[in-house]
Amino acid sequence: MKIRVYVSLKEGVLDPQGKAIGHALNSLGFQGLGEVRVNRVVDLDVPADDSSAAIAKGEAMARALLANEVIEDYSVEVVA
Amino acid sequence: MKIRVYVSLKEGVLDPQGKAIGHALNSLGFQGLGEVRVNRVVDLDVPADDSSAAIAKGEAMARALLANEVIEDYSVEVVA
Repeated sequence: MKIRVYVSLKEGVLDPQGKAIGHALNSLGFQGLGEVRVNRVVDLDVPADDSSAAIAKGEAMARALLANEVIEDYSVEVVA
Repeated sequence: MKIRVYVSLKEGVLDPQGKAIGHALNSLGFQGLGEVRVNRVVDLDVPADDSSAAIAKGEAMARALLANEVIEDYSVEVVA
């Protein structure tokens, strides 16, 4: 079952990559942009019988490896 | 208007980060995983009157800076 784990910086954590992209877009002529944040998405194919088992597995993997819970939040969804 | 730009490696392009994550998850006891791919999501707040203008702006930004069209695909959606 295909799942998608979104990993995003928590509110208030500085995102230097996003800031750099914002400045670069501004220099390229895209004016008036608000905040820019760059997040990570991990697409996985997990062996699971149903969606809730797949989501539980995704959350376990996020806690174990994919997200740094000190500064990042994660969410898991089934995509197919 | 808040938009989200997904940037993903094209099919067939090797994803070493995804491979490394797959191996690490396997070592941590998550067996039987299929392919793992790591993608990038850029959340932006763009000045636009309607969704189609916001999406057009997101696509222009993806082509200009956010995606490397030689090896990456992108898609844009309005989130709020």
